[in-house]
Amino acid sequence: MSVVVSIVTQDVRFPTSLELDGSDAVNVDPDYSAAYVTIGLDTGEEGHAFVFTAGRGNDIVTHAIDVYGQLLFGRNADELIYDLGAASKRLIHDSQMRWLGPEKGVTQMACGALVNALWDLRARREGKPLWLLLSELAPEEIVDVIDFTHIGNALTPELALDILRRGEAGKADRIASLKTDGYPAYTTSPGWLGYSDEKLVRLSRAAADAGFSMIKLKVGGNIDADRRRLALMRREVPGTPVAIDANQRWEVDEAVNWVNQLAEFEPYWIEEPTSTDDILGHAAIRKGVSPIRVATGEAVANRIIFKQLLQADAIDFLQLDATRVGGINENLATLLLAARFDVPVCPHAGGVGLCEVVQHFSFFDYAAITGTQEGRFIEYVEHLHEHFAEPVRVTNGRYVAPVRPGIGAEMLTASREKWTFPSGSGWLEIGDSASITDPYPMAAKV
Amino acid sequence: MSVVVSIVTQDVRFPTSLELDGSDAVNVDPDYSAAYVTIGLDTGEEGHAFVFTAGRGNDIVTHAIDVYGQLLFGRNADELIYDLGAASKRLIHDSQMRWLGPEKGVTQMACGALVNALWDLRARREGKPLWLLLSELAPEEIVDVIDFTHIGNALTPELALDILRRGEAGKADRIASLKTDGYPAYTTSPGWLGYSDEKLVRLSRAAADAGFSMIKLKVGGNIDADRRRLALMRREVPGTPVAIDANQRWEVDEAVNWVNQLAEFEPYWIEEPTSTDDILGHAAIRKGVSPIRVATGEAVANRIIFKQLLQADAIDFLQLDATRVGGINENLATLLLAARFDVPVCPHAGGVGLCEVVQHFSFFDYAAITGTQEGRFIEYVEHLHEHFAEPVRVTNGRYVAPVRPGIGAEMLTASREKWTFPSGSGWLEIGDSASITDPYPMAAKV
Repeated sequence: MSVVVSIVTQDVRFPTSLELDGSDAVNVDPDYSAAYVTIGLDTGEEGHAFVFTAGRGNDIVTHAIDVYGQLLFGRNADELIYDLGAASKRLIHDSQMRWLGPEKGVTQMACGALVNALWDLRARREGKPLWLLLSELAPEEIVDVIDFTHIGNALTPELALDILRRGEAGKADRIASLKTDGYPAYTTSPGWLGYSDEKLVRLSRAAADAGFSMIKLKVGGNIDADRRRLALMRREVPGTPVAIDANQRWEVDEAVNWVNQLAEFEPYWIEEPTSTDDILGHAAIRKGVSPIRVATGEAVANRIIFKQLLQADAIDFLQLDATRVGGINENLATLLLAARFDVPVCPHAGGVGLCEVVQHFSFFDYAAITGTQEGRFIEYVEHLHEHFAEPVRVTNGRYVAPVRPGIGAEMLTASREKWTFPSGSGWLEIGDSASITDPYPMAAKV
Repeated sequence: MSVVVSIVTQDVRFPTSLELDGSDAVNVDPDYSAAYVTIGLDTGEEGHAFVFTAGRGNDIVTHAIDVYGQLLFGRNADELIYDLGAASKRLIHDSQMRWLGPEKGVTQMACGALVNALWDLRARREGKPLWLLLSELAPEEIVDVIDFTHIGNALTPELALDILRRGEAGKADRIASLKTDGYPAYTTSPGWLGYSDEKLVRLSRAAADAGFSMIKLKVGGNIDADRRRLALMRREVPGTPVAIDANQRWEVDEAVNWVNQLAEFEPYWIEEPTSTDDILGHAAIRKGVSPIRVATGEAVANRIIFKQLLQADAIDFLQLDATRVGGINENLATLLLAARFDVPVCPHAGGVGLCEVVQHFSFFDYAAITGTQEGRFIEYVEHLHEHFAEPVRVTNGRYVAPVRPGIGAEMLTASREKWTFPSGSGWLEIGDSASITDPYPMAAKV
């Protein structure tokens, strides 16, 4: 028996707003951050996980992880990591804390981080990267960790088992091919809204040359700028599909109108045209912009919203996020829901560490659920990989299969210490940059 | 000019789980709690507000209020309280913290508390209770504080102005009648799931004798018990309508089946039959249980979900909650959305302090929006009113108009100190009750 003896959180923030990496129509100045947690066992084993955030408020999430962590402290770790369905429910359905969501926002993210840290412990103990661990589990074991609450009218344990059992055929071959050939990637790195035209063109060329399957452009700030930037991109790399992403900037009617004004550039999809809470709105937009396809997911709160987006025929692509929902368990539910409705999953990865984690979901999806990479790719952004124990590798526009045991979330100790906010040496060094050192730079502008 | 010089939070929890007050099929052991905030100005003025929670995790909310509070600290209070639309947007749309919701869960609750504390300052300065302050504002002033983002396809500023301008006719008379006659109430006090049959019958009789318009019964634990308890209640008070409340306990199909098994008792409404995130599910349930009507709202995250529940014809009654959404501003949006779709608003008040605050919304709705009390009543529960500066008054089954300037949220200093968790004298006194003093009593049960 092993026991949970420590749960340590760290408020890690990177000053990405200095370069406008990650800027879009809504997220104008993100400091990519990680509400980081390490679960320690008496055996010396460690499980690592984090919640991605955009800077301010990262400490709200670390505090929430601390509070939920008390539900795990002192517990039998073997029971936790070999009954991850029960562990997840104990956190997410806590009879008092459930009120704080339910199953959404800060509390769901915090629960997800703890669930993921437990999965990290499990994967390390079994000596496998998460995608391989999941792919080699029996269908019954996958179904056992999923919470089917409130999705029963779309996905039952029986339907999930059916999907996974069909996925057994050829699974070993697909695992082998993932190890040799990886999985397609697309890149958002050229298209951040804060970048100059020159930088956009230069990075688009570089992305196409690097073999990415698609490029994504942030839109929604100004229609003329969007048309100019989209035209520049299409001219520079005519053979590469370009998706567009509005980060929830629009009202429903506005989205239809705006996207149709960009139709001549044949965007591969329109991502987050409006609030991700607006299921009916997405369905209306999808009808209104057809044949342009609709994608969303990075801000979807939980499996219940995903279920409805699928039921309402509101999306063509589902973009799960690794750290917003209730951990790997809820993402497994979402992968199976997507398979049930035959909607391809293209994970979100614009942030710090998300590439490192989300790749596991697509690898597992190919190996054990859908068996296809058709019309599917994982988002890729270039920055901050150097801080991770196993930085993501992309070669010829494809993700290379991760090999390190665990879920991919481990950030280097030195990086975590340097960028701990506000006391880490990295933050102390840039202390003369007013826009960064003032934790609330916009407070004067109301 | 006045300046925000202090923002103080307090983690106030009441040991209600000892008596199973507030117990239902999902919230089995709530300790009714308040994440309390006091905004202080250099003039000595104070604004009070709180977020209701169910116990554990109350400190997650106080911490979030502390973090968002830094956006207000040192600011010109006159600008804040006389441009509450801008103040609200500065909090809720903070470019970095928005990621933590967006607009849902802990962060939305925290923003709502700060927005409400600013309204409390405003109402005190003008010497009016909130409902009267709102009722006497010009339609343009109401519209000015509302955030129409992502509800534009259901409610525009122009439509909102139309509704409010129609409400001008007869408003003075309605304000006068509210001051003399109040507003109808219904009570949930007899129907908590943890109560014995004897207590349920006794309290039902008392409620009917006290003149309440309706009684509510918690259901969803066990169908036989539900039938027995509902029969007991109907037999004891045959002339009083009885609503039922499942607190999101069911799957969609299960809800239809379960409610139809209770149809012979003619429940006035079925409340929270499934996840409040499930708009399509509520629409299906409403069709499946007709003519029994469907109500929801206490756990609805924001105006965007409410918009869709209305657009999808999914609810017959809208139950706004005073402290879950982004404050009074977002509740004003919801009141106008409900009016636009002609759905009556019957506020949720099962918690501590919610009666004291939600009454203001119904009073304002009658005075300035719908002009009717037909089919509308405010929930009432009996406990914990003694802790408030102006305890809610219910006479002959009607809420009496509050008169104290402010939003009704002020809790007595002595109560806040006694029940501060875990160091207040109230908590130290009951320190020998294991189920209470262990902050995580269920941890051993996973």
